[in-house]
Amino acid sequence: MAVRKLYGSLDSPDTLKVLACLLEHDLDFEFVPINLGAGEHNQKPFLSMCPFGQVPVFEDGHIKQFESRAIIRSMAHGYGKKLVEELIYWDSRKQATVANWIDVEDHHFEPPALKLVTELSTKPKNGLVTDEKAVAEAEEKLSKVLDVYEARLEKLKYLAADKYTVVDVLHLPNLESLMGIALTKRLIESRPRVSAWCSEILARPAWTNVLEMIKMQVV
Amino acid sequence: MAVRKLYGSLDSPDTLKVLACLLEHDLDFEFVPINLGAGEHNQKPFLSMCPFGQVPVFEDGHIKQFESRAIIRSMAHGYGKKLVEELIYWDSRKQATVANWIDVEDHHFEPPALKLVTELSTKPKNGLVTDEKAVAEAEEKLSKVLDVYEARLEKLKYLAADKYTVVDVLHLPNLESLMGIALTKRLIESRPRVSAWCSEILARPAWTNVLEMIKMQVV
Repeated sequence: MAVRKLYGSLDSPDTLKVLACLLEHDLDFEFVPINLGAGEHNQKPFLSMCPFGQVPVFEDGHIKQFESRAIIRSMAHGYGKKLVEELIYWDSRKQATVANWIDVEDHHFEPPALKLVTELSTKPKNGLVTDEKAVAEAEEKLSKVLDVYEARLEKLKYLAADKYTVVDVLHLPNLESLMGIALTKRLIESRPRVSAWCSEILARPAWTNVLEMIKMQVV
Repeated sequence: MAVRKLYGSLDSPDTLKVLACLLEHDLDFEFVPINLGAGEHNQKPFLSMCPFGQVPVFEDGHIKQFESRAIIRSMAHGYGKKLVEELIYWDSRKQATVANWIDVEDHHFEPPALKLVTELSTKPKNGLVTDEKAVAEAEEKLSKVLDVYEARLEKLKYLAADKYTVVDVLHLPNLESLMGIALTKRLIESRPRVSAWCSEILARPAWTNVLEMIKMQVV
């Protein structure tokens, strides 16, 4: 019986980040789907786990967390050491670097990435009009971030180190979406190191398994 | 000679958070002022430390970081154990809780707090017109967060635990600003537990020293 439970939705990028991390660590868990369309995340039983009504929520024995990056940090702290391929480092300098670049993903990469996915994919799919000014602003911001990544990937194999870390894991859902949109695919493919890094991490078996779950909508 | 250097500005809330944390840990450091008005943060020598042109940057021996929450986490990891009053816990459950609530401050508290400070204090001081719609939206968001805090402070003495942690430290600059604005002061004072927590943490000697530095503009 799984002691770990992930309450979330396959429509939520934050849920997908945690799923990828769980699979990457090869941990047993039970996935408990939360129906966002029916507003389950804003109702009583769920709100007692997360007062802000956001998915995912992760329970691991006595630990309960609802912020996805906090979940992933704790997972790497708790289980990273046991893996052949360590996702986080125990050296203080390397840990400081991982912490720094987790926040870069949070503050610099995700906001324009999400904005572009919303404007160029979600809105058109739902018959809504794309805000071209918002697209131009987000494109400029994302381009700047990708330039920083391109320079960084000249020196390192992955974003935080020469090893795959949770920083890279955090980028997966948004990179996958960005590669499905012509404009943003070009932003990635025009930068050779970013492009190679993106192809490599999107091909990792843990991420392929997450995509398989989405396709099946069965977990 | 200080091995630790903090490059930042006393006008930057993120710099003040790190300063409060350094003083709380009683660590020696050198403060290197970065002149934001003159755009020093967007020029060459500084950009080599932080490609996004943001303050503060913290150097501690071989560690260099530019994301304020990452700096504070690493400081608590590196030095927290040595303090009588531990700022972070080494128990995995407590550490997971601290990580979770650091991200609550980042994602839920700070955005509406900063918006309200900008609209109700910074803009009027600079002769700009307050956007009343933005104020109403941010007030609603901040009220919701403070309701969550009020409920949490019924069960705990501080936000992440019964001890003062880095989660509380992170709130100091914005709480100080919110207490200087009539509307937001009321939001805090109308919630008895939030109000008591706010008064207590703003009175901590480390924070009083930061305010003294701002007053003197000499460090």
